[in-house]
Amino acid sequence: MRMLINVPETVVADGLRGLAAAHPGLNVDVENRVVVRGDAPVAGKVGLVSGGGSGHEPLHGGFVGAGMLSAACPGEVFTSPVPDQMARAAAAVDSGAGVLFVVKNYTGDVLNFDMAQELAEDEGVQVAKVLVNDDVAVQDSLYTAGRRGTGATLFVEKIAGAAAEEGAPLERVEAVARRVNEGSRSFGVALSAVTTPAKGTPTFDLPSGELELGIGIHGEPGRERRPMMTSREIADFAVNAVLEDLQPSSPVLALVNGMGATPLLELYGFNAEVHRVLAERGVPVARTLVGNYVTSLDMAGCSVTLCEADEEILRLWDAPVETPALRWGR
Amino acid sequence: MRMLINVPETVVADGLRGLAAAHPGLNVDVENRVVVRGDAPVAGKVGLVSGGGSGHEPLHGGFVGAGMLSAACPGEVFTSPVPDQMARAAAAVDSGAGVLFVVKNYTGDVLNFDMAQELAEDEGVQVAKVLVNDDVAVQDSLYTAGRRGTGATLFVEKIAGAAAEEGAPLERVEAVARRVNEGSRSFGVALSAVTTPAKGTPTFDLPSGELELGIGIHGEPGRERRPMMTSREIADFAVNAVLEDLQPSSPVLALVNGMGATPLLELYGFNAEVHRVLAERGVPVARTLVGNYVTSLDMAGCSVTLCEADEEILRLWDAPVETPALRWGR
Repeated sequence: MRMLINVPETVVADGLRGLAAAHPGLNVDVENRVVVRGDAPVAGKVGLVSGGGSGHEPLHGGFVGAGMLSAACPGEVFTSPVPDQMARAAAAVDSGAGVLFVVKNYTGDVLNFDMAQELAEDEGVQVAKVLVNDDVAVQDSLYTAGRRGTGATLFVEKIAGAAAEEGAPLERVEAVARRVNEGSRSFGVALSAVTTPAKGTPTFDLPSGELELGIGIHGEPGRERRPMMTSREIADFAVNAVLEDLQPSSPVLALVNGMGATPLLELYGFNAEVHRVLAERGVPVARTLVGNYVTSLDMAGCSVTLCEADEEILRLWDAPVETPALRWGR
Repeated sequence: MRMLINVPETVVADGLRGLAAAHPGLNVDVENRVVVRGDAPVAGKVGLVSGGGSGHEPLHGGFVGAGMLSAACPGEVFTSPVPDQMARAAAAVDSGAGVLFVVKNYTGDVLNFDMAQELAEDEGVQVAKVLVNDDVAVQDSLYTAGRRGTGATLFVEKIAGAAAEEGAPLERVEAVARRVNEGSRSFGVALSAVTTPAKGTPTFDLPSGELELGIGIHGEPGRERRPMMTSREIADFAVNAVLEDLQPSSPVLALVNGMGATPLLELYGFNAEVHRVLAERGVPVARTLVGNYVTSLDMAGCSVTLCEADEEILRLWDAPVETPALRWGR
């Protein structure tokens, strides 16, 4: 146990209190577990709502703000939020222009967002949904039918969020979100297991000196275990796995993402190798983001997400954003 | 070993190659280990140069850009850069308005920046220096005479960087930097030891279930070891240690900093406790930054830095910044 917590039971609520304290521009309902941008609902603007289990921070609460999510619903650690949270978030951000749910493809999340859609529609909110399923590592996994949703979530939320901020109508925001997901693929690697506060010991066994190729963001099994590989070898494996499934027709956005406990120095070194492989494969990179964005608590490791970026997507990526974790002006 | 690296010998160079690939707006000289903002020298602007051992990323290379550092010099992991790097950086950013060196108080850094000042002055560059020594945990330590320089470095670099960006002359930029340092104090805690690539095993022994109060950012010993404490208890200890040495006469900027391997969810929870203690002690918080900014590779733990922020300092903190790690518009 090397956790900076009070007791496991209050980890999520404590985190929300801290988010509220650091970011007065957010409206954080700790009791009901909904994080809403302070100026919501914004007249005429489509609302963008996401959520999922906690433990992946800054996803999703750190992506709430102008130009990205309107609201986020954190569940317990690695556990879907409940439909009431999502419906409450939808009601809080709907200006009459409708709400898009961004749902990572995990069975619990999918079911609960389905129920939330019904609840919200019963209250007169128009709801569309987009499913994020970018992880090429495995088909079906613990908690998932089909491909898992991981790093592409950041691209979907940022780019659809920018479209919504510009005043695009719901069907347009939904179409952009869908296009971003369809043009995105990810692959992740674990160098250590993850320890949840409730369990207090690693949730799976990864012997020192081995890595897991194709890990999920909850420590779900990937494709295979191997003896430790170099950064260069891991980049070859991960980028080639992505490019087996995606032949980009345009320059890409690259997310070189840390799982939580891997030093930024190492992530940047890994980014050099990712760029090398992409250059060898003839894939131009338009923008690169390196850091811990879609994490798995204290897991060591990384993931690579590539997203095809035509001119519109690139423009929306570059558009201003003002959230705790992503923030830039023009 | 759970490192995402090629070989220990290339970790710093690999990281610089990756920094260059991700941030085309920087001019990264991998061979000479100098990171310079792409538009340097900026006519009429004071240059701001810092540096130090690698392993603390994003410090310092991630703070290079408009509104913050003009250049950074990374040394080997936990090892001071050499005078030639610093002198080269000074020459690259000097527009004739002079250069301020921001130096964390470690013996090697202090000596090398002294020598670099002589080298740069021999080349006709006017150089001033400010020493950062904010860590209240211990007087004298491994590598340091007097107090160590830690989290306040971020405040000094951001705020003096904003003053330089506004066109303040060297003596004014130096005075602001000095004032920020004098109004800042830090205290850090380790929940696990740190492993350097060269050694491959933890550099000190911290038994599971214990923590080290007053840790340095290279794993230097702090004040004492104790059995594991709660987030609430750690916040009480750390904030009170800071406030024993600093009685803020104005609202403060708060940096709730992760050492590298502590999840953001836990850092936000810790931030809630930091704000609680500050409220109890009657210290208003003007701005809060939560995240991994002044790190120690894969160490688990956190630090708190408070900085007195009068109106000028607050205005300079809020001024636009465009670097890999800190980025915001107006």
